[in-house]
Amino acid sequence: MDKILRINVGAEGGPKATVESLGEYAGLGGRAMTTRVVVREVPPACHPLGPENKLVIAPGLMAGSAAATSGRVSVGCKSPLTGTIKESNSGGTGGQYLARLGYAAVIIEGERKGDDLYKVIIKASGVTIEKANDLRMLSNYPMVEKLHGQYGDAPCFITIGTAGEMRMGNSTICFTDPEGRPTRHAGRGGVGAVMGSKGIKAIIVDPTDTKIRQPKNSEQFKAANKLFAQGLQQHPVTGQGLPTYGSNVLINILNEAGGLPAYNFSNGRFADVDKLSSETLVEIQKKRGGNPTHGCHRGCVIKCSGICVDKDGNFLSKQPEYETVWSHGANCGIDDLDAVIKMDYMNDDYGLDTIETGATLGVAMEAGVIKWGDVEGAMNLIHEIGKGTPMGRILGAGTATTARCYGLEHAPVVKGQAMPAYDPRAVKGVGVTYATTTQGADHTAGYAVAPNILSVGGKKDPLEAAGQAAISRDLQIATAALDSTGYCLFVAFAILDQPETFQAMIDSINGMYGLNMTAEDVVELGKNILREEREFNKAAGFTKAHDRLPMYFRREAFPPHNTKWDVSDEDLDSVFDF
Amino acid sequence: MDKILRINVGAEGGPKATVESLGEYAGLGGRAMTTRVVVREVPPACHPLGPENKLVIAPGLMAGSAAATSGRVSVGCKSPLTGTIKESNSGGTGGQYLARLGYAAVIIEGERKGDDLYKVIIKASGVTIEKANDLRMLSNYPMVEKLHGQYGDAPCFITIGTAGEMRMGNSTICFTDPEGRPTRHAGRGGVGAVMGSKGIKAIIVDPTDTKIRQPKNSEQFKAANKLFAQGLQQHPVTGQGLPTYGSNVLINILNEAGGLPAYNFSNGRFADVDKLSSETLVEIQKKRGGNPTHGCHRGCVIKCSGICVDKDGNFLSKQPEYETVWSHGANCGIDDLDAVIKMDYMNDDYGLDTIETGATLGVAMEAGVIKWGDVEGAMNLIHEIGKGTPMGRILGAGTATTARCYGLEHAPVVKGQAMPAYDPRAVKGVGVTYATTTQGADHTAGYAVAPNILSVGGKKDPLEAAGQAAISRDLQIATAALDSTGYCLFVAFAILDQPETFQAMIDSINGMYGLNMTAEDVVELGKNILREEREFNKAAGFTKAHDRLPMYFRREAFPPHNTKWDVSDEDLDSVFDF
Repeated sequence: MDKILRINVGAEGGPKATVESLGEYAGLGGRAMTTRVVVREVPPACHPLGPENKLVIAPGLMAGSAAATSGRVSVGCKSPLTGTIKESNSGGTGGQYLARLGYAAVIIEGERKGDDLYKVIIKASGVTIEKANDLRMLSNYPMVEKLHGQYGDAPCFITIGTAGEMRMGNSTICFTDPEGRPTRHAGRGGVGAVMGSKGIKAIIVDPTDTKIRQPKNSEQFKAANKLFAQGLQQHPVTGQGLPTYGSNVLINILNEAGGLPAYNFSNGRFADVDKLSSETLVEIQKKRGGNPTHGCHRGCVIKCSGICVDKDGNFLSKQPEYETVWSHGANCGIDDLDAVIKMDYMNDDYGLDTIETGATLGVAMEAGVIKWGDVEGAMNLIHEIGKGTPMGRILGAGTATTARCYGLEHAPVVKGQAMPAYDPRAVKGVGVTYATTTQGADHTAGYAVAPNILSVGGKKDPLEAAGQAAISRDLQIATAALDSTGYCLFVAFAILDQPETFQAMIDSINGMYGLNMTAEDVVELGKNILREEREFNKAAGFTKAHDRLPMYFRREAFPPHNTKWDVSDEDLDSVFDF
Repeated sequence: MDKILRINVGAEGGPKATVESLGEYAGLGGRAMTTRVVVREVPPACHPLGPENKLVIAPGLMAGSAAATSGRVSVGCKSPLTGTIKESNSGGTGGQYLARLGYAAVIIEGERKGDDLYKVIIKASGVTIEKANDLRMLSNYPMVEKLHGQYGDAPCFITIGTAGEMRMGNSTICFTDPEGRPTRHAGRGGVGAVMGSKGIKAIIVDPTDTKIRQPKNSEQFKAANKLFAQGLQQHPVTGQGLPTYGSNVLINILNEAGGLPAYNFSNGRFADVDKLSSETLVEIQKKRGGNPTHGCHRGCVIKCSGICVDKDGNFLSKQPEYETVWSHGANCGIDDLDAVIKMDYMNDDYGLDTIETGATLGVAMEAGVIKWGDVEGAMNLIHEIGKGTPMGRILGAGTATTARCYGLEHAPVVKGQAMPAYDPRAVKGVGVTYATTTQGADHTAGYAVAPNILSVGGKKDPLEAAGQAAISRDLQIATAALDSTGYCLFVAFAILDQPETFQAMIDSINGMYGLNMTAEDVVELGKNILREEREFNKAAGFTKAHDRLPMYFRREAFPPHNTKWDVSDEDLDSVFDF
C-alpha cells in the first residue's frame, strides 16, 4: 500500500487515471485515510453531488495481509444524505485486493462531462478506464453477472446499482463477496450517489499476480495474529453467537430489553418476533441447505455472514443482518422472514442501504402510503425506488426526505440519516452516539449497545441517562481507530472484554508495520480522526443544535418501559470534550 | 388592537379560544409581533410541524386605520421549508379586519388531536370554533365560495388550500381580497403547512359592527397621511409604474439588465420576454375588459394589483406578479402569458407560493421530468401538487427537496427556500440579501434591486461585489421595521427617494399612536427584529456557513455578462455587524 490511484473524471477526452506516491497520506488506512483526504481536499461547503466533492475508497491498514478478520474497506466523501463528512465501510474482497495491488486509496474526483458511464479496471499491470454505457440502469446482480462474463471470477467488482446511478440519498457502493456476489455494501450515507455523480458505474479490482501483503516483522505478526484469532474464537459473542446465528442473534435480545423499535419507533417490542429470530432462520436454512456460517471476506474467523436459500435450495440472498430483519420486519409490522430475505436481495440488487430503506418504509407506512405489515406493498415500494418512479424518488431520497414530503414529524433521523435498530429511549448509550457522531445516526460509530444490553465492555443500565455520554465517547474514539485498521468492528466484542486480545491486535499491527504503537497511540489516533471530522462538519455548518435527537423522542414515551429520551444537552455537548 | 386571541388546538374536547391582554407584547405589530412571539414561545429546536411550533398572525401597526397602503398582515412561525424563523406577509383584508376587531395577534398553538378539521369564526361578538370536515381537501376557490355562501361577503377568509392541508413545504396561507377572492397569500416558507398541522382549515374574520381604527392625535395623523399619500403618488414607481403595469413592469428591465434568471437560473435573458411583458398584458387586458389597476386591500393608493379576464371577459386570475411571470415563464422557458395567468390561479387555488412553484418546475425541467417550455406538462405538475400524488409530494415539498429527489446540484435555494426573480450573479446586492437574510432566499427582505437596477435609494453597479453588503444591511434593517407597520413594502420606493415622504410615514405612525418616534427609532426597531431572528436561527443550528449561496453560483458564469458570484464571505459575514 504505497500508492494512491487518482481518477479525474473531468479530464479532457474522458476520465484519466494517475498513480501517485502516498506523500502526506503515508501511514493512513481506512477511515483515517478517507477522513484525512476529505478534510484536506473537499471544501466543506460544497454540494455532495457537485464537482468539488471526492469519493475516497481506502482499505484498512491490515487489509490484504494474513491478519484475521481484517478485510474491511472504508468509503469516504461528503455525504449526500447527511451533508456531513462520511465514512461508510464494507466487507467483501475489494479492500483486500486493492491492498494487495498496493493502493492505499482510490480517489475519484472532478467534474463529470456528459452522460457517459465509465468503468475502471485495476490490475497489477496497470489501470484502464473504459466507457460502460452497456451497464446503464443495470442493478447489481445482473451487472455483476455481466462483469463476471467479461472479467472472470478473480476480481472484486465495486459497483453502484440503479440507486447510485440515479444519485439517490439512499444508495450504496457494493463490494462483491468471496463468491463474487454483490452482497457487501458501504451502505450508509448515500455514498453510491457520489460515485454516480462522477459517472463511474463499476470498478474492477483484479488481484491476479499479486500476493498477500507481508509483515515487516514476521515473527511478531504471526504470534500476535494467532493470539488475536484465538481471542476472537474464545469470546462468546465472536466465537459462538455471531458464527452460529449472525448479527440477527440480537433481535430476541433487543425485543426482550424493550428496545426493538417496532412500527416506526413507536413500540419496543414486536409481538411476532419469534418468526423473525435467528434461531428460526438458522433452523429453516439448515433444513433447506443454506449456510448460516460464512465469512464476508477471506480470512474472517468470526463468519457472521451466511447464505440463505429457498425450499428448493436456490439462492435467495445473503443472511440478512439484524438491522435488516428489524428494519424490514418489526419496524414495518412484517413477520415474514422469507419476505425479509427477499427484500434484503432487492436492496443489494438496487444498491440500497437496508437500514435506510426499512426506516423509510416505516415512515411511508405511518404516512398511509401502504398499510403496516403489507409485504407485497413494501416490495413494490422497493421496486419503485430501484426504477426511479416518482414514489421511488421520494423513498430513495431517504427517511428524512420521505417524512418531509408527507409532512410527518415522526422521522427517526439524526442529521438526515435514519436511526438503526435500537430505540434511543430504551438504549440510551447508543442514543448518545446517534445524536453526536460525526456521521448522522449510526450505531456502529459507538456501539453502546454492548455495555447497555450485552454486558460487554462493562455493564450499564440502558434506561439511565447519566453516564452514557462517557460510554459513547470512549466507544466513538475506539471505533474511529478500529475503522482505520481494516479489522471488522465485531472484533470489538472480544477486545473490549479481553485485554490480551486487544494487545494482540496492537501487536499484529506493530508486527505488520514494524511499529511500536501502544494502546494510548490507538486512542490518540481515534481522537484525531474525530477531531478532523468535527472540524469538517463545523465548517459545513453543523453545530451542537444538530447533535440532538428529534424533539419527539423527548416528548413521547416509548413502551414497554414508557421511557423518554432524557440525556441532557450538557451531557451530549460533553461527548467531544477530550 | 389591545388583545391577543390564542387558539389551543390541543385542548380537551377540541380547540379552545381564549382572549388575553397584550401584556409583554404591547406596542408590537406585524413582523415585530410575529418574531417576538416566536422567539419567546417556540423552542428553536422544535419540528416545524410538531406541537411545539406556533402560528402567529399579526396585523401591522397601522392596519385597520385610514393610513394609506397600510393593510399588510404578517404570518410567523418556525418555517417547515427553511427551518428558520419565518415572517411571511400578505395583502388582502384580513389584517385590516383583525385590527378593527382589536386583535394584535392570533396565536394558534398546541398539539392537534385526531384528524378533524376546524374553522375559527372571529366576530365582534366573540370567537367560536367549529368542525369543518366539509372543507376537507377543498382548494381555496371552491372553499371560499362555500364560505361566502355560509358567512356572506363581509368577512375576510383566511384559509389553507390542499397544499397546506397536506402539510407541504410549499404551502401558503390565503387572505381574501376586497372582492372576496382568494388571491392574496402569505406565500413564502410553507406557513400553510403549520396551519395544516394544527388542523385549522379556515379563519373567518367578520368586521361587521367594527369601525375604522381612530388615531390618538387626529390632526397630526390626517396631515401626515395626506402628505404620505401624495408622496406615493408623485414618485414615478409608486405613482405611475406600479399602478399602470403592476410589479411585472420589472420583467423587461431585468431582462435588459441581464438579471432575469431564465431556464433555472442559467441565462440572464429570455428571448421571448416581450410576450411576457406587462405592456403586453395591459394591452390585452384593456381590450378584454380586465382591470390592470386594482388594490389588494382597501385604502391602497399604489394599486399595483389587477384583475385578468379571458377573451370572453371571464375572470382568469388576479394580475400575476413579476415573480410569478418570471418563475412560470422565463424560468421554465414558457412564453405564453395566458398560461402563466392560469397557473397563477392554480397556485392561488391550491395554496402554493408562485415563486417556490415556478422555481421547482424549473428544477423539474432540468431533471428531465418534463421539457422546457411544456405548458401542458407544467400545468399537470401543479395539479399533481394540489392532489398530492407522489410526484406532487416531491414538487410540493419545494425546490430544494425536488433537486434532492432527482440528485441535482442545481437547486437555486438558500436555507431551503427558492431564490426569486433576480439572479444573484447579475444583481449582487440582492444576492447578499438572499444569502444572509434570516428568512431563506427572499428578495423582499432587503430589496437591493432598487439601487442596483432601478436607481432608487441611490445607485450601485449590480455587477460589482464590493459595497453590496452595506446596501443589503441597510435595506434589511429598514424592511424589518417596515414589515412591522402594515405599510406595503412598495412604499419603500417613495420613502427611499423622498425624505419628506419617509418623515410623513413616521408622523403618521406617531399621530396614530401618540408617539414621538424618530427615524433613528425606526432603524433601532429594525435592528432589534433582525437580532431576535438571528438569535432564534442560531439556536436552531444556523451558522455563517448557511449564509451562503450554493457553490455553483461561484463556479458557473451567468450570461450575458458571464459574471460569477464573487461577494466575499467576509462581506457576507459583515451584514449583521450593527
